[in-house]
Amino acid sequence: MSLNSFGHLFRVTTWGESHGPAIGAVVDGCPPGVALSEAGIQPWLDRRRPGQNRFTTQRQEPDTVEILSGTYEGRTTGTPIQLMIRNLDQRSKDYAAIADRFRPGHADLTYHLKYGLRDPRGGGRSSARETAARVAAGGVARAVLAALVPGLAIRGCMVQMGADAIDRAAFDAAEIDRNPFWCPDSAAARRWGGRLDAIRKAGDSVGAVVEVEATGVPPGLGAPVYAKLDADLAQAMMSINAVKAVEIGAGMAAAALTGSTNADEMRMGPAGPEFLSNNAGGILGGISTGQPVVVRFAVKPTSSILTPRQGLTAAGEEVQIATRGRHDPCVGIRAVPVGEAMMACVLLDQLLMHRGQTGGGVPGRIGG
Amino acid sequence: MSLNSFGHLFRVTTWGESHGPAIGAVVDGCPPGVALSEAGIQPWLDRRRPGQNRFTTQRQEPDTVEILSGTYEGRTTGTPIQLMIRNLDQRSKDYAAIADRFRPGHADLTYHLKYGLRDPRGGGRSSARETAARVAAGGVARAVLAALVPGLAIRGCMVQMGADAIDRAAFDAAEIDRNPFWCPDSAAARRWGGRLDAIRKAGDSVGAVVEVEATGVPPGLGAPVYAKLDADLAQAMMSINAVKAVEIGAGMAAAALTGSTNADEMRMGPAGPEFLSNNAGGILGGISTGQPVVVRFAVKPTSSILTPRQGLTAAGEEVQIATRGRHDPCVGIRAVPVGEAMMACVLLDQLLMHRGQTGGGVPGRIGG
Amino acid sequence: MSLNSFGHLFRVTTWGESHGPAIGAVVDGCPPGVALSEAGIQPWLDRRRPGQNRFTTQRQEPDTVEILSGTYEGRTTGTPIQLMIRNLDQRSKDYAAIADRFRPGHADLTYHLKYGLRDPRGGGRSSARETAARVAAGGVARAVLAALVPGLAIRGCMVQMGADAIDRAAFDAAEIDRNPFWCPDSAAARRWGGRLDAIRKAGDSVGAVVEVEATGVPPGLGAPVYAKLDADLAQAMMSINAVKAVEIGAGMAAAALTGSTNADEMRMGPAGPEFLSNNAGGILGGISTGQPVVVRFAVKPTSSILTPRQGLTAAGEEVQIATRGRHDPCVGIRAVPVGEAMMACVLLDQLLMHRGQTGGGVPGRIGG
Amino acid sequence: MSLNSFGHLFRVTTWGESHGPAIGAVVDGCPPGVALSEAGIQPWLDRRRPGQNRFTTQRQEPDTVEILSGTYEGRTTGTPIQLMIRNLDQRSKDYAAIADRFRPGHADLTYHLKYGLRDPRGGGRSSARETAARVAAGGVARAVLAALVPGLAIRGCMVQMGADAIDRAAFDAAEIDRNPFWCPDSAAARRWGGRLDAIRKAGDSVGAVVEVEATGVPPGLGAPVYAKLDADLAQAMMSINAVKAVEIGAGMAAAALTGSTNADEMRMGPAGPEFLSNNAGGILGGISTGQPVVVRFAVKPTSSILTPRQGLTAAGEEVQIATRGRHDPCVGIRAVPVGEAMMACVLLDQLLMHRGQTGGGVPGRIGG
Repeated sequence: MSLNSFGHLFRVTTWGESHGPAIGAVVDGCPPGVALSEAGIQPWLDRRRPGQNRFTTQRQEPDTVEILSGTYEGRTTGTPIQLMIRNLDQRSKDYAAIADRFRPGHADLTYHLKYGLRDPRGGGRSSARETAARVAAGGVARAVLAALVPGLAIRGCMVQMGADAIDRAAFDAAEIDRNPFWCPDSAAARRWGGRLDAIRKAGDSVGAVVEVEATGVPPGLGAPVYAKLDADLAQAMMSINAVKAVEIGAGMAAAALTGSTNADEMRMGPAGPEFLSNNAGGILGGISTGQPVVVRFAVKPTSSILTPRQGLTAAGEEVQIATRGRHDPCVGIRAVPVGEAMMACVLLDQLLMHRGQTGGGVPGRIGG
Repeated sequence: MSLNSFGHLFRVTTWGESHGPAIGAVVDGCPPGVALSEAGIQPWLDRRRPGQNRFTTQRQEPDTVEILSGTYEGRTTGTPIQLMIRNLDQRSKDYAAIADRFRPGHADLTYHLKYGLRDPRGGGRSSARETAARVAAGGVARAVLAALVPGLAIRGCMVQMGADAIDRAAFDAAEIDRNPFWCPDSAAARRWGGRLDAIRKAGDSVGAVVEVEATGVPPGLGAPVYAKLDADLAQAMMSINAVKAVEIGAGMAAAALTGSTNADEMRMGPAGPEFLSNNAGGILGGISTGQPVVVRFAVKPTSSILTPRQGLTAAGEEVQIATRGRHDPCVGIRAVPVGEAMMACVLLDQLLMHRGQTGGGVPGRIGG
Repeated sequence: MSLNSFGHLFRVTTWGESHGPAIGAVVDGCPPGVALSEAGIQPWLDRRRPGQNRFTTQRQEPDTVEILSGTYEGRTTGTPIQLMIRNLDQRSKDYAAIADRFRPGHADLTYHLKYGLRDPRGGGRSSARETAARVAAGGVARAVLAALVPGLAIRGCMVQMGADAIDRAAFDAAEIDRNPFWCPDSAAARRWGGRLDAIRKAGDSVGAVVEVEATGVPPGLGAPVYAKLDADLAQAMMSINAVKAVEIGAGMAAAALTGSTNADEMRMGPAGPEFLSNNAGGILGGISTGQPVVVRFAVKPTSSILTPRQGLTAAGEEVQIATRGRHDPCVGIRAVPVGEAMMACVLLDQLLMHRGQTGGGVPGRIGG
Repeated sequence: MSLNSFGHLFRVTTWGESHGPAIGAVVDGCPPGVALSEAGIQPWLDRRRPGQNRFTTQRQEPDTVEILSGTYEGRTTGTPIQLMIRNLDQRSKDYAAIADRFRPGHADLTYHLKYGLRDPRGGGRSSARETAARVAAGGVARAVLAALVPGLAIRGCMVQMGADAIDRAAFDAAEIDRNPFWCPDSAAARRWGGRLDAIRKAGDSVGAVVEVEATGVPPGLGAPVYAKLDADLAQAMMSINAVKAVEIGAGMAAAALTGSTNADEMRMGPAGPEFLSNNAGGILGGISTGQPVVVRFAVKPTSSILTPRQGLTAAGEEVQIATRGRHDPCVGIRAVPVGEAMMACVLLDQLLMHRGQTGGGVPGRIGG
């Protein structure tokens, strides 16, 4: 219920602002006895870390995670895990001017309207830095999933930058880690490099589509009606900064299908039901089928750009605002590990809920 | 937290199956003193009611709502409001065969896997009848919104059927109530009539895109990070049966925009900030801006079709399944009032939360 | 979170007023596959039913429970269970006068202050009738507990009426069902009969202490800090009408003990740790030990009495108010089955949470 | 819902163990714009701080609070407030022996049973140090209450040590801060000093009763049935380490009263209803009346004592365990500021909920 928490049983609460001393996450409800260390979480943060190449913000943050509670001798104890990441590269500059100006497309306007004041330094709570805390929490979820569901794997990638989408026929999972875009299509990655250079130099930014797929998800995760697995995923992904749309499986394209083309036909495989397609994105009636769970989300272009746009001051004056500073020309890139982290948290949470209600496993067998 | 509830302060719990004696919703946390009667809720249910024309299921249900608690002398008392809708037209037929068969694309498979058993009659809990309870709850939310935010209006419509989208230039709000598709484009409505007749006769079904817009929404509704207004809307809409994607404002199209084209520039109007566009869909940083809140969602085609598709039996045998019975050829049509109801519930819930945390109103003024 | 719900995973929402058409409870999160029928719940309601002897209200209510959803062919499906109890014996009388008067010690004052209006008929939502819905929900919890933890037993009794407590040395569990007070001490039961007759004839009422004990509770139920088993029990029992205090184990008397007398020493028994005493009431650090869980609560005397007491009118006039009508001279009697129901719900809820987080069972063994 | 959180809208999540690097609390849902600084919270922590006199543990902890997020320029922003307290005086000693031994009356047994492992150093998560985080969160709640309800005051005191209770006739609020027991009766404080010296020297400990009273509480706080103000208080107080019972108003003594003596009669005062007594403890039907809210709770004696008591080893061997170390001979003393903090948090939470549902204030007036 709380405003800065998500999850039912595996519950993550994040805190912190861009230019405060630290940000972090409290992870509550974690199963006990799971091997967990800072060294195990850090690689996930490293994937999201800014300043790694010319396509992300030049803010230099090591994003070193510290576990302040909830583990003993390298194992989780079942008590709350506090994950803290200190903010180190906070450029000293005068935020007084910004405090009185509202950039178009930016949360500083609505924070002001809602609360009457805000921390303007680096976006405060609405900064993309908040997502580092999600990634740290996702590292905990991954460690637990690795222990409970060994075959489960989560893989995010960027499938569109601006209007330029990948060629699905060229999808090569091995390519994802080889380019700065987490792009599974090497030709697209090359194109994107040139395009983004141009956009960046023009003082502009661009949107993207991110896809996250989880394979090895056991059937039965989810719940009817409001705690549907897809409803939880939609909330989780839409809660990421700058996300404007979430799709499951065929997503928006499902609208254009007919019942006979959309339904994923089944056959009996050696290990249970198999499907001839996956328009459902691995979820039927809010509950996982055992197929890969597929989520896509659209990330809007960063609104902090050098190109001047018309905004307002607190006094109500119209002003042209050009945002200097260190911003991502395509924030969708760094949203890839964030989407993976949210997927991990949601799947683990639903797994624990399923175990709580039913005892776990697959109560309803098909075949023999 | 509960599996069949949604909302933080204005909290709705639905219950009931397609072929049980009744379905309903408990609405908790409703403000007291608001005029509310069955007669005030019934019109919203009538909009969703099946059997109204040849494009919806021929099941005949009056969907008469009964208020069993929570009002006194025509006003809400602040205590739980139980809304009950009796099921009347439950065709007597033998469900034994269906109980052992899993239709492709249908929740009966996953309910079986998760729980080990299910109520197979008419889809049980996964039936679209559950959405009648949402519409009833939405009727309560609308009554409260009418009292608290008189200028707020919610209007849903269908903007795409199959691959056939409306012409935005022909958008005419007055047209929406004049055709069986809640379609704002009269030419499109005529086309859809012909197409859907053909689809229905072919024993098939088709998907759709529904758009819900709320105008007069006060700025400041929402919360940072996990209880964002858009995250709550995404969860709410994705929880509706058959929905596979949710968009806010520009939605998926935001990915293709640049920062300079996406940011909604502002000017100062007589009553506060005005925007030159609405790519944000009325929400920035998870908080309403005062612009119209715009949500779209894709509804997949009904998987219960006459065209045989390959499914499985509980014994693991592959079978061709053709679903006879009374099903919607385009369930997106009836999703329009459901989407409106979810919008009403989410907005009221966030309004109450905003009032709780801040005292209500707009704490941060702009201009004089 | 909602105002009229309790429980984390096994979640109960009650609704309804004393003089509305019905009251009831929605039970969400129930494990699937458990045998459940109206006939199995009814006996628990019969124990709480009014009008059974001269020591309880003479309102005649059969309190027949109807299951409207959530079961199929006699088993729970894992979906919400709606339990409805119709109100039948609603005396027609003029409540207009009462609507403007506030009895001392009664909730009608505070409902008015909080909401600005209320349903005055029979106490509305604050009526003890609400507890019938709890007992019905407790019947569901008992059915699940019987399936999951066969040895678990819950037994409530009244251990004090007014200032007259039972003799612990005379405690005889078999006696509890043999007298109208659920009293385990036959001599005390006889004394109470005479005393309560006198109190009733004097137009007065009297308080009581109820004790609920659960045996066979597995160790490990509960959680550190805020979702402690004892904290949940305290909330559950204090939420019952007229309850003013809750004790666990030694309770208030623990204050008078020293560390050396309070600590329950342990020895190793054949099946695990055994305790030489139970001052802890079966709970240490918020988690069950395996010993009997013992809760006591004080029920204040009914404030609806024939003896005139000074109250106020809505206009602010001081008036002597004597409450005519059918009221319990010792409402503690009927609180016994209610306390049992709350114990059942809390234990099952914590059992499901424990199973969700840890997989269930007793992860930490002692001895061989 | 999460295991280590409490509160509905004003939501506190605590984390940390006795011998980890730090403990703390995240406070979510705080109203914006309230003046808040570390200097304003510190005095509350100083009241609870260990090592202040010979009657509390000799562990030396400055308990300095750091605000890591949620404020800007000395005011709350409405975003999560992270309060961190570093652990400094962690005695280096070998916990290996203790890790395999379970003290009677201590949570180390149940943590082991539930989780299969635990942090044994200083009690880990079950240490009374966790309560420092509550006091820090309570400091935030007090700052907000001071802004929203200026006349509200919270005052805790110890009213019984062991079997020795204060003389109510000698109650002097000014005395509370003048002795190391927060005792309002100077004669009792003197007696307790001698008694506790003897108990401490005997290697034993003793229980206590703490009373917390809030005056100036507006009427209307609370909710029917499960989110009753008294039910929330019961949960909050029972969640404090070592608490075994919670009373509201007359508490357990209400059982011995008759309806005519228990009901608090009313008269009309210049500012609204006045009451001739306060057996209700300021709460009727779960909702505040405007009278002082009075809660008492019993704190059991510390189970960590020098006197040997029979416990078990993990191998199942019976052993005599004497706990050396720095423990409170009467932990009830330091529970006084903790109880005050919980009262502050619960009242503010209910105030925000009331404001959310009703708009705030007193919707139902009495008199002109």
